[in-house]
Amino acid sequence: MPGDQITAAFYRGNKSFAVETTEAAVAGPGEIAIRTAYCGICGTDMHVYHGNMDARVGHNRVIGHEMSGVISALGEGVSGFAVGDKAVVRPLDPCGVCPACKAGHPHICHNLKFLGLDTDGAMQEVWVVPAHTVHKLPADMNLAHAALIEPVAVACHDVRLSGLTQGEDAVVIGGGPIGVLVAMMARDAGGKVVISEVNPHRLAIAEKLGFDTVNPAESDLVAAINQRTGDKGADVVFEVSGTQPGVDAMTAVAATRARIVMVAIHATKPQIDLFQFFWRELQLIGARVYEPEDYEKAIAAVAGGAIDAETVITDIAPLADIQAAFESLDRSPTALKSLIKVGDLP
Amino acid sequence: MPGDQITAAFYRGNKSFAVETTEAAVAGPGEIAIRTAYCGICGTDMHVYHGNMDARVGHNRVIGHEMSGVISALGEGVSGFAVGDKAVVRPLDPCGVCPACKAGHPHICHNLKFLGLDTDGAMQEVWVVPAHTVHKLPADMNLAHAALIEPVAVACHDVRLSGLTQGEDAVVIGGGPIGVLVAMMARDAGGKVVISEVNPHRLAIAEKLGFDTVNPAESDLVAAINQRTGDKGADVVFEVSGTQPGVDAMTAVAATRARIVMVAIHATKPQIDLFQFFWRELQLIGARVYEPEDYEKAIAAVAGGAIDAETVITDIAPLADIQAAFESLDRSPTALKSLIKVGDLP
Repeated sequence: MPGDQITAAFYRGNKSFAVETTEAAVAGPGEIAIRTAYCGICGTDMHVYHGNMDARVGHNRVIGHEMSGVISALGEGVSGFAVGDKAVVRPLDPCGVCPACKAGHPHICHNLKFLGLDTDGAMQEVWVVPAHTVHKLPADMNLAHAALIEPVAVACHDVRLSGLTQGEDAVVIGGGPIGVLVAMMARDAGGKVVISEVNPHRLAIAEKLGFDTVNPAESDLVAAINQRTGDKGADVVFEVSGTQPGVDAMTAVAATRARIVMVAIHATKPQIDLFQFFWRELQLIGARVYEPEDYEKAIAAVAGGAIDAETVITDIAPLADIQAAFESLDRSPTALKSLIKVGDLP
Repeated sequence: MPGDQITAAFYRGNKSFAVETTEAAVAGPGEIAIRTAYCGICGTDMHVYHGNMDARVGHNRVIGHEMSGVISALGEGVSGFAVGDKAVVRPLDPCGVCPACKAGHPHICHNLKFLGLDTDGAMQEVWVVPAHTVHKLPADMNLAHAALIEPVAVACHDVRLSGLTQGEDAVVIGGGPIGVLVAMMARDAGGKVVISEVNPHRLAIAEKLGFDTVNPAESDLVAAINQRTGDKGADVVFEVSGTQPGVDAMTAVAATRARIVMVAIHATKPQIDLFQFFWRELQLIGARVYEPEDYEKAIAAVAGGAIDAETVITDIAPLADIQAAFESLDRSPTALKSLIKVGDLP
């Protein structure tokens, strides 16, 4: 209600959050208010915490976008939703007029506003968002698991753009939170998946999730993939490591006409074996965030068990402890996905 | 006929050819003998001339593969051809059993024999080749023009893999012989084509062929493409330069979800703006040689006038003068495609 007091966590710069009472926003025309249940900590949120995005987010920003919740109010003109619906937010607000929007790719709008970075996000008890960003969840959905839907939608987008089909060999380079979700969705699509990862803790999690793994620091990744595939190589490669060795490996393990999906965000310009692209007619496919169909796929995957949410979620902390949760995640070698329990929803 | 004496040009190493009389090969089972009319000098042939491929070709090799001719004999079991047919050769002899062949991509066979490099080629009056490599030409086809079909087929393959459709904006980076053929086939497919090239002689030829051009050493290529496309960028980019500046430009001029075709052979590993692949969901598509349908398309393009053969062919020399022809091409700033007139066919 207007004037309602809620708790929100503000990023204040210098690796610090302040948990404060503030006035809840109200759902205006075309908007929906959602009581936040859980909000995951994304790699991007860690970048904010480290001060790398201060110019973009400032020091008075509520961050958070990997959320789940329950609709608490509908603004004027909103239909298709009801108060009490469980929901998640696809946190993209495109401009509608740029060349990407006009070409039908609003998820990579040239002027994209990312909710929870360019606007206040979900680390607050009530989040008000444009209705076009909201996806309804099944009534019996576990809301902690549902906080995984946003990163799972990234994985769904990556696997969809790869064109992976039943029985194809896939290599995921980098077994962090996004890497294991990509691996799970690739497996769900029928892929025979190997995860390449150097961190032994992450290797252990990947193996617990049932994946074959290779530690390329200890054994020959290319030989291992050739051996598994009868010297064919991998039909699909996901580069999730963001490293030069990962970029070297992505072309080396690729089969003739393999599709390599660029999931990682490379801040520098690595060297690439372009000869191999020519020689084996490889394809490189850039993939960024998600489209509505990826969200629907992700909702079904989390609800249906393709995602082993209990293993992926390694920590849950209350909003009051957000500072400690970021500090802990920052130094943890074993954490995969940490959630903040924002409100008092179950 | 068995025992026939013919003239052939042998590569003898150290930038030298010897034109000698030799015994013509005879078409064995499944083979076709072709009287060579014309044979173009390919960039690969120039690499041979410079000694860069001695380990592969040796010093007793008849090179040449961009050829046209007339069938002079059919080996046992060959059907679908007749003596007197005009023909060209698709000079690829795949193994049939490697993973690429088994996956239906024999043109990029892992053990591919390239006729005219790994076997003797067309710089001789009679060339005997496997029948599966031969494409028949229209009876009224100009045989000098037909010597362009092999490189035009490369361009057809590149444009086909790009998925270029009517009205799309295309940039060809590098206006050499392959670049202008790619540009012509992209224009034939309905693309609005700009050629980026730094060599003023090549720019003049590109303009003579009716293309808009940019010299990126003298003006801002990205600004020029953005200005032409309303800040959208190019839907399709062909990287034909094989240079780091070309690789920098290919991502900089690309529209959201643009397809970048890797035509060039990059001997070193350039740095690539992978962030842009992620950010704009770009695709990189490796393209190598051609498939049968590209040959059929190329035959139709040369026969139908989509290729301005008279402008592309800048020199024709008799086989006896092959040494001078290579020397001249090697130092010519203006030559585009040089042909050797091998036999006495018109």
